[in-house]
Amino acid sequence: MTNTQVTLFQIDNYGPWTVTPEPRREADLQTLQSRLYADISQFVGNRDGYVFFTRFDNMIAVTNGLDVEDHALLQESVGNRLPVTLSLGVAADPSPVTALSEATRLIQDAGSAQDGNRREILEGRTVAPPARTAEDVQIAHFDVIDATGNYTDELNAFDSFIQIEQGYAELMKYMRRSHDSLSFFVGGDNIIAVCPALEAGAYQDAIDHVETSVDVKLQVGVGRGSSPHAAGMDAKHALEVCRDDGTRVELKW
Amino acid sequence: MTNTQVTLFQIDNYGPWTVTPEPRREADLQTLQSRLYADISQFVGNRDGYVFFTRFDNMIAVTNGLDVEDHALLQESVGNRLPVTLSLGVAADPSPVTALSEATRLIQDAGSAQDGNRREILEGRTVAPPARTAEDVQIAHFDVIDATGNYTDELNAFDSFIQIEQGYAELMKYMRRSHDSLSFFVGGDNIIAVCPALEAGAYQDAIDHVETSVDVKLQVGVGRGSSPHAAGMDAKHALEVCRDDGTRVELKW
Amino acid sequence: MTNTQVTLFQIDNYGPWTVTPEPRREADLQTLQSRLYADISQFVGNRDGYVFFTRFDNMIAVTNGLDVEDHALLQESVGNRLPVTLSLGVAADPSPVTALSEATRLIQDAGSAQDGNRREILEGRTVAPPARTAEDVQIAHFDVIDATGNYTDELNAFDSFIQIEQGYAELMKYMRRSHDSLSFFVGGDNIIAVCPALEAGAYQDAIDHVETSVDVKLQVGVGRGSSPHAAGMDAKHALEVCRDDGTRVELKW
Amino acid sequence: MTNTQVTLFQIDNYGPWTVTPEPRREADLQTLQSRLYADISQFVGNRDGYVFFTRFDNMIAVTNGLDVEDHALLQESVGNRLPVTLSLGVAADPSPVTALSEATRLIQDAGSAQDGNRREILEGRTVAPPARTAEDVQIAHFDVIDATGNYTDELNAFDSFIQIEQGYAELMKYMRRSHDSLSFFVGGDNIIAVCPALEAGAYQDAIDHVETSVDVKLQVGVGRGSSPHAAGMDAKHALEVCRDDGTRVELKW
Repeated sequence: MTNTQVTLFQIDNYGPWTVTPEPRREADLQTLQSRLYADISQFVGNRDGYVFFTRFDNMIAVTNGLDVEDHALLQESVGNRLPVTLSLGVAADPSPVTALSEATRLIQDAGSAQDGNRREILEGRTVAPPARTAEDVQIAHFDVIDATGNYTDELNAFDSFIQIEQGYAELMKYMRRSHDSLSFFVGGDNIIAVCPALEAGAYQDAIDHVETSVDVKLQVGVGRGSSPHAAGMDAKHALEVCRDDGTRVELKW
Repeated sequence: MTNTQVTLFQIDNYGPWTVTPEPRREADLQTLQSRLYADISQFVGNRDGYVFFTRFDNMIAVTNGLDVEDHALLQESVGNRLPVTLSLGVAADPSPVTALSEATRLIQDAGSAQDGNRREILEGRTVAPPARTAEDVQIAHFDVIDATGNYTDELNAFDSFIQIEQGYAELMKYMRRSHDSLSFFVGGDNIIAVCPALEAGAYQDAIDHVETSVDVKLQVGVGRGSSPHAAGMDAKHALEVCRDDGTRVELKW
Repeated sequence: MTNTQVTLFQIDNYGPWTVTPEPRREADLQTLQSRLYADISQFVGNRDGYVFFTRFDNMIAVTNGLDVEDHALLQESVGNRLPVTLSLGVAADPSPVTALSEATRLIQDAGSAQDGNRREILEGRTVAPPARTAEDVQIAHFDVIDATGNYTDELNAFDSFIQIEQGYAELMKYMRRSHDSLSFFVGGDNIIAVCPALEAGAYQDAIDHVETSVDVKLQVGVGRGSSPHAAGMDAKHALEVCRDDGTRVELKW
Repeated sequence: MTNTQVTLFQIDNYGPWTVTPEPRREADLQTLQSRLYADISQFVGNRDGYVFFTRFDNMIAVTNGLDVEDHALLQESVGNRLPVTLSLGVAADPSPVTALSEATRLIQDAGSAQDGNRREILEGRTVAPPARTAEDVQIAHFDVIDATGNYTDELNAFDSFIQIEQGYAELMKYMRRSHDSLSFFVGGDNIIAVCPALEAGAYQDAIDHVETSVDVKLQVGVGRGSSPHAAGMDAKHALEVCRDDGTRVELKW
């Protein structure tokens, strides 16, 4: 059984800030957002977590292995170096969706995302080391079969992107509703899903659904581990097996 | 009539690099990609262009105001500072889609995105200053009506994201097919579209389509200018009018 | 005759900010400072200028080729992306020291570096294109002869650094007083000096002085150009000649 | 008694890389160096260490609290994200100089800093948690008395810098030779020294020496702790006492 620890990072009162006193240059907002994401990615990643850019002003992370002090330090460091601050909620549950719902609720209960007085909330609980197991996190790494040959080298770059994006939009919705999983586009033709303890059939079902719905062919490698990095590395290696052998679903555990 | 100059940035042979000799840590790939995007965003943005992260390994930019030397300098600077290199194609046309198709073709003709011998292509032509006009670029800035009240403060962060994402997936497809426009999610609940010389009816049509198809309510401000920044700032101000007055489509020119 | 355009970047009220309300984590201050420097380096460098980190809270740049609008844009972009703001003064003169003195005075006249009410000053004048010439900027690039063999591979890393640092401290003082030049340590064993129209004898004098005073042996390549980058690249190539031929002073013009 | 764990970070074969095949743009080298420093600063700093930019191609860190796996992860992450690689040596000793000498020797023994075949060395031992104590690290934080009033607001920015730099050059040499300490300029008018278990008299001696030698007036706060961050924060608070009370040396333990 998984026990996924999920952290929600929300920039405090970001929307109003972007237009105060006048709308700010879009290039600066894009730079600020993507560098904030990069910094969180390094901090969380160097402690074997995964963070996803999601909407950039709301980023979702899997943080098994990080304790509350780690979260507080990241929050302080961002506050020291950027013109915006972060609120954090963290919770764990066998269901990634339930964990995220709890993490979200902790922030929502403290005030609106656009409440100018709500700043640097840090709420929630983490999984203490004695309770951690090698099955806490399950990560699935999807990509599109021969995306380069079928799309990137053939279509214009936006039409290639439409294909990838339609595949992602369908998969993220289906995995959420049918398999209680959180799926994130991570660049190129790659999608990473944070899952409960699913078996091969669930993944076959999902890639069948996407192929039927939007005609995008996916393959997937899946791993389990005590941390997102451990599970994710196994998933990457499993996906390499798909690429080498032409299989569609590979589990590595 | 618009004359949109579009640049495609493609990381050379990126997919193979990410798994050679072994799959690299996901957090490092995420950091590399988002910082590369931030750097291009600053370079292009400080010359009044816009760049969109798109798939990260293929980024699309509107670059009216940048000449070929600017492109070469950016390519050199990335090559000096990162472990990957970029190929660039650039072209201009009244239709953003046609411009992008030409820019893509210039790179494709030089070799596959996964050809280890194709490196640092720089092909294409830019719009010289005497030919530039104040109507070369049309930018539409969409957002979701009261996304904070309806989604962010109410749903869990992933279910909010599903709403935004479904709205984006539908809009990007529809604007491409019906209105020859390139639409990009830029974080939060914001989508920026690069358009030919559309009028208000086209935007009303698009937001009606999205509302009917996936029940996401959008509003949009639109601007025109000689550069993406000039057009985009007018679009942002027009969108502020929507927010203040409750209108759905505002053009500012 | 040179006509060096010098810009002083000063972080507004930085000292007090670093200890308010409590001293901030040193690692965050170091990160903030070095990334601010990197950003200014990219912005200025991509317009063929040079910027030196100096004291980090006061950075000195040679900005021939940048106009006042460029300076304003950089100031705005930093203000949009960082928790601190910059004041800028810019002036040009055949003497780099005189130019810097004027640039400094423009900021000092507006208020103290620790005046909480002085923010985002932008004062001064730039050299307009018609007045620019191919001899406006003279750059000298020094390094320590066989620093790797004599120091880096032989002494502990701090004792190597002491040698480099004593050489720099002596050269920067001597070049300022005797040759009206601004010299900056730029990493490794490299020092870059911004000079008036000096000839070979002046450089020979300076390296003799340093060798006599602190027993550090320097060599130097010197270039001239319309921009710091143009002059600096010639200086780098001239220094390569020193390395290849064992000469101590090479001018390339 | 202190037990300072010191890490030397050396970029592999950096000098030759900067001029191959041609000298690279100085702005790109400056950006690469300062961002590499920022990244190491975040990684080490978020584990309560301190890193100093030193010569940028050779950076010295105090890393009590980081184990060999942490060092390996940082080395891997840099190799994944930058076009250069790092070699690391780490050692601990009551004397910071002895620790650094050992750390340096470990790298030197593996090959020259400009040996193209020596890459990503990782050698040395760290202080295991059971052996760590609250007196392992002693940090002194110096600054120049009223540098803003005496220099920054009065002299041109380079002449201010000369004063700071001469003070630093003298202090770093004296503290090394007389008090077995490693002193680093950290921006503004601040110098941080890594020391053995010195008492107040040694600091008074050092600031007297600097004042007599180069007429720069320093004050200093000193702290002790199990990590550089813990010791350094106490030093910062002690320095605040100097600023408030006009004292010259404050120890906080």
